[in-house]
Amino acid sequence: MSLPSAFDAGVVAALSALDAKSVKHVFFIACGGSLSIMHPAKFLLDQHAPLPSDIYNAAEFVARAPRSLDRNALVIFCSMTGTTKETTAAAEFARSKGATAIGLTVEPASPLAEAVDHVVGFEAPYTTGVPIDAKNSNYSRIYQIVMGLVALTGGEDLTETLIDSLVALQPAIDRAHATFAPMFEDYAPRFAKEDVVYTVASGASYGAAYSFAICVLMEMQWINSQAIHANEFFHGPFEVLDKNRAFILMKGLDSTRPLEQRADEFLHRFGSAENILVLDAEKLDLSGIDPQFRGNVVPLIFFDTLWRFAYKIADLRKHEMLEARRYMKKISY
Amino acid sequence: MSLPSAFDAGVVAALSALDAKSVKHVFFIACGGSLSIMHPAKFLLDQHAPLPSDIYNAAEFVARAPRSLDRNALVIFCSMTGTTKETTAAAEFARSKGATAIGLTVEPASPLAEAVDHVVGFEAPYTTGVPIDAKNSNYSRIYQIVMGLVALTGGEDLTETLIDSLVALQPAIDRAHATFAPMFEDYAPRFAKEDVVYTVASGASYGAAYSFAICVLMEMQWINSQAIHANEFFHGPFEVLDKNRAFILMKGLDSTRPLEQRADEFLHRFGSAENILVLDAEKLDLSGIDPQFRGNVVPLIFFDTLWRFAYKIADLRKHEMLEARRYMKKISY
Repeated sequence: MSLPSAFDAGVVAALSALDAKSVKHVFFIACGGSLSIMHPAKFLLDQHAPLPSDIYNAAEFVARAPRSLDRNALVIFCSMTGTTKETTAAAEFARSKGATAIGLTVEPASPLAEAVDHVVGFEAPYTTGVPIDAKNSNYSRIYQIVMGLVALTGGEDLTETLIDSLVALQPAIDRAHATFAPMFEDYAPRFAKEDVVYTVASGASYGAAYSFAICVLMEMQWINSQAIHANEFFHGPFEVLDKNRAFILMKGLDSTRPLEQRADEFLHRFGSAENILVLDAEKLDLSGIDPQFRGNVVPLIFFDTLWRFAYKIADLRKHEMLEARRYMKKISY
Repeated sequence: MSLPSAFDAGVVAALSALDAKSVKHVFFIACGGSLSIMHPAKFLLDQHAPLPSDIYNAAEFVARAPRSLDRNALVIFCSMTGTTKETTAAAEFARSKGATAIGLTVEPASPLAEAVDHVVGFEAPYTTGVPIDAKNSNYSRIYQIVMGLVALTGGEDLTETLIDSLVALQPAIDRAHATFAPMFEDYAPRFAKEDVVYTVASGASYGAAYSFAICVLMEMQWINSQAIHANEFFHGPFEVLDKNRAFILMKGLDSTRPLEQRADEFLHRFGSAENILVLDAEKLDLSGIDPQFRGNVVPLIFFDTLWRFAYKIADLRKHEMLEARRYMKKISY
């Protein structure tokens, strides 16, 4: 089989160099925001192939040294700047065990790029300030890797369908901004006053909830947070819910949507609607995105639109999104 | 090979009935507090065998329907009362796919016990109020399953060493209570006033941090919380740290201890020592526990001793540990 011509050249080069059928285990390794995209990637792989995989924080991965890490392992890393020390060290560790390492990064001359077998570039608006097309994002590139791997290891070849859907993603994001804008305008003044804001999601969307909690709310706004899995919510966390508590709930379109729907009903039963921001993918116009990938791309739409909500909160709090840091990249640690 | 005579009879029966070499994938499935013990179980398996495994919340597992779930999968469930609906449904789902299901529960006549192929009983003090011996806990039983599986699938046979260590665990817990008591006495009045308390850990201890955050702090005390992975801490969450913020840090003895050590140093550099409760396993007398399993059993010691800290906080807050619930088992949902 051959991969679609519209696939990213870096993805094609990495997968072509690989003896795909020898891959017995996939590891998805990164830190923080880059780790968050590994959750939807594993979700996609779990759906389409019986190929085992693990997601680990890069430092955990090295210290744990899982026995499945050997020459038949494929390890996929991501670091936007390519300078995350733990991730580079993990790439060196993986290669020392004979595994094949693919590194996703914006910077092709970075330490991570040097440490891996194959570099896959991507674009991120946060480095240049220039808007990107979502088909060039880390999500898009890792989805191409996963579905390419599925096809190359004997699974169904959905690569053409995937790439067509990824090309249709940016227009869908642009429409989503307009769809959610009035709700963000309404909720921002209340959320800007909160000291604790939880995010809730499951399935393909859990990573986006994790990233918004730790990288945006905690890191950029110093707001206390946690990403709560939509069903785990009912096994402890829901007891913190009252009429004043703020939640952001993602209702996606993947097979776990009923879990998020159940959380939605409970949140509205015992919380206040004005403190529960619900991003419901059923409200989005997803034209051009194949139904079988809608659930997979929705978290990127959620995350991208939520940046606008975050900036509104930041303005109201007078707390700079990209500059206000006590520690990150300001001191050595 | 034969399993040690000191192994639990239920574990021996389950493993003896299994064609261990046909097992290609292990799933660790539960909800909430029972899900938390799956993290150290997977850590132990990752350390000792190249056998792939996944941890999923029970409802996520069913909705996700991973392609690795087939007749060559072994699925290990846990529910203390055996009445957790999502877990029972997941056991039925797993068996419908041809997988072998082992269920850990205190109640041998419960719905979960009915739904699985093999029941493994355990003891929990929370059901009877009577203290148990830790060698009969869910941790102990799942570790016996994991190390039995490692031995039966061609890995090193450490089952005798494990069971000897588990027999030595309760005395170590009893000594740990005395070791940590003065620190708990000191910290409880301050922590009782906190609205947000984070837990931090990695490796084998992450599950204990998760359980204390969602089942004890959030569920039982309505205190906002999150279990932060000790290295993920540096990739976002650490920005919420200031001199007033409260953290509970677990410093275990497994291979990820340097990650927890690094978090410890940062917490003490920018936080206040009086708001950072550190459980350091190096302070414990672990006589009788083999060095190669010390890192694995330490989280149970942490969790067991932390109950005493939680009860102290509950007394000071006048917020009942076991009775004060708004929703759990008080309403239908």
